Amino acid sequence: SRSINLAVIPGDGIGQEVVAEGLKVLSAVLPQDVKLETKEYDFGARRYHATGETLTDADLDELKQHDAILLGAIGDPSVPSGVLERGFLLKLRFAFDHHVNLRPSKLLPGVATPLAGQPEIDFVVVREGTEGPYTGNGGTIRKGTPHEVATEVSVNTAFGVERVVRDAFARAQARPRKKLTLVHKNNVLTFAGHLWTNIFDKVAEEYPEVTTDYIHVDAATIYLVTQPERFDVIVTDNLFGDIITDLAAAVSGGIGVAASGNINPSGEFPSMFEPVHGSAPDIAGQGKADPSATVLSVALLLRHLGYEAEATRIEDAVSADLAERGGLPARSTSAIGDALAVRVAG
Amino acid sequence: SRSINLAVIPGDGIGQEVVAEGLKVLSAVLPQDVKLETKEYDFGARRYHATGETLTDADLDELKQHDAILLGAIGDPSVPSGVLERGFLLKLRFAFDHHVNLRPSKLLPGVATPLAGQPEIDFVVVREGTEGPYTGNGGTIRKGTPHEVATEVSVNTAFGVERVVRDAFARAQARPRKKLTLVHKNNVLTFAGHLWTNIFDKVAEEYPEVTTDYIHVDAATIYLVTQPERFDVIVTDNLFGDIITDLAAAVSGGIGVAASGNINPSGEFPSMFEPVHGSAPDIAGQGKADPSATVLSVALLLRHLGYEAEATRIEDAVSADLAERGGLPARSTSAIGDALAVRVAG
Ligand SMILES: CC(C)[C@H](C(=O)O)[C@@H](O)C(=O)O
Ligand SMILES: CC(C)[C@H](C(=O)O)[C@@H](O)C(=O)O
Repeated sequence: SRSINLAVIPGDGIGQEVVAEGLKVLSAVLPQDVKLETKEYDFGARRYHATGETLTDADLDELKQHDAILLGAIGDPSVPSGVLERGFLLKLRFAFDHHVNLRPSKLLPGVATPLAGQPEIDFVVVREGTEGPYTGNGGTIRKGTPHEVATEVSVNTAFGVERVVRDAFARAQARPRKKLTLVHKNNVLTFAGHLWTNIFDKVAEEYPEVTTDYIHVDAATIYLVTQPERFDVIVTDNLFGDIITDLAAAVSGGIGVAASGNINPSGEFPSMFEPVHGSAPDIAGQGKADPSATVLSVALLLRHLGYEAEATRIEDAVSADLAERGGLPARSTSAIGDALAVRVAG
Repeated sequence: SRSINLAVIPGDGIGQEVVAEGLKVLSAVLPQDVKLETKEYDFGARRYHATGETLTDADLDELKQHDAILLGAIGDPSVPSGVLERGFLLKLRFAFDHHVNLRPSKLLPGVATPLAGQPEIDFVVVREGTEGPYTGNGGTIRKGTPHEVATEVSVNTAFGVERVVRDAFARAQARPRKKLTLVHKNNVLTFAGHLWTNIFDKVAEEYPEVTTDYIHVDAATIYLVTQPERFDVIVTDNLFGDIITDLAAAVSGGIGVAASGNINPSGEFPSMFEPVHGSAPDIAGQGKADPSATVLSVALLLRHLGYEAEATRIEDAVSADLAERGGLPARSTSAIGDALAVRVAG
């Protein structure tokens, strides 16, 4: 019989609330014969304040035993900026080699967008997850003096770029429009830019059916608001991916519905699925958070584990639910979760 | 008697056309007693192809003699990506220490925006121009092999950050809303992020009337499309500034109206003024380009040289002209220039 052994990290702020709904929908969608085991972990601000720990080697060993990880949100104003981000979120992505950061953007019918004229938006960003300016390379000298120098080194390897570019080509090939856009800034960041561009062009030869395109990251932000329909699959570096996926979320219904997967395609380590939004401490505990982004992250998780039909059922349920309520969380977090659970079970 | 000794660099593509209109309006707006001298320089793709040169030391010595520089656009698909950008545009910004890259965004009445509901947009981005990931630090090893490693180093100094932060505070203080937002990514780029944040907080103490705010660059792209009215002055790093000012241009009427100044506030070197748009080779030579961005760059140039009334007259003329034609270049490049020249002379 089949089973899913899931690590659950509710985290901080609204993380708790949205993860509860994600699990509700997950239980409802799974066939009877699939045994779901979950283990909850208390990572985040409270554990940091209590113990000073963010993510230990022992934690990583434990997490490694799971088939996948569902995360709500990590982060709280009581913790200095960077501590939980570098000490937990990025540490986990790097330790588990989550090099494919998958972020789909689809403007669902009836969902509000800040753009005029309800454009067609249906693309996926494949963001590199283990290199670029996120490596933590760099440092500071003469800290706090008028002569301080702080550096950040973007590290890009042929190995790291090629594997994520290949993943993106395979995804583009599998989609009806078969179009892949490389987003970078190769006219200024010429060292990294040429590495990305050369590998992209080389792999493109193996995918003659995929239409390719290159856009500078600054211009990409323009197209995301003026012609988002031009994108099908985008592949990009870690930092550019961070920036354009927030914008992509904003134009396609907001971060309340933006899902993401931090994927280790080889399966050597468990992949991690999380909403793009943060812990939103301002609305935490009020039942106001839209759990759709987490529920859609559960769909990505299921697809990653091979439950394609169940993933699609969740996506259809969210789509129907959003159409019904016009995109806004008119109901409470748990009411939305209940409605989705009924739909997917239906 | 007063005089302006201007270096004019039309450059490539539509650069030629829009600069002609910029000069037309400049001549029309200047009082009789101001002597305008211009000298044209042939930088860009043609010179590069003819001589292999982008910008020589002798060129820099000549340019240095001028009071200011007006640039159209540099760049052509016939030149490999990066050659003119690094060899001309960035070389000039670095050589003349253009550390304040000023980019105002104002949605003028009647101008189309991709955003629904015609929001109020009136802010200015102060982008650092001589540091960050733009320094060209970095390199490549094992080029073209499966073991290639390419790095890009973002270099940030207390000296460089403090001077641009001070400039931004002074600008915020001089505006009615007196609000300054720092945009960075200090939760991930912790070395540079802490330098920026600490200096920002330190200088803030000297400006008790200025309301301050910090936003991560990814979240800033969300606010630029959902709540652009929240911004008054933004100060940010070179790369983040590059990205968000293209988005800012897109939401506030498009790059057809986005002006910029590459400013050396001390006056040690001439400042350079240019539209944010590029050379747009696809529409070059057809009289289709909107010269408004260049004309508004001329206004920034005049303000920089102390001609405040003339700068405002140009801005009012562009505003009136855009309102009349609904934002789009329904008339040709030169017809728009003619109309603006009549208005400012009027
Ligand atoms: C919280 C932060 C470390 C993270 C990132 O920058 O990757 C977030 O913005 C995201 O996009 O998942
Ligand atoms: C052309 C390029 C070098 C330049 C930059 O990145 O600064 C441009 O995008 C700009 O914003 O002026």
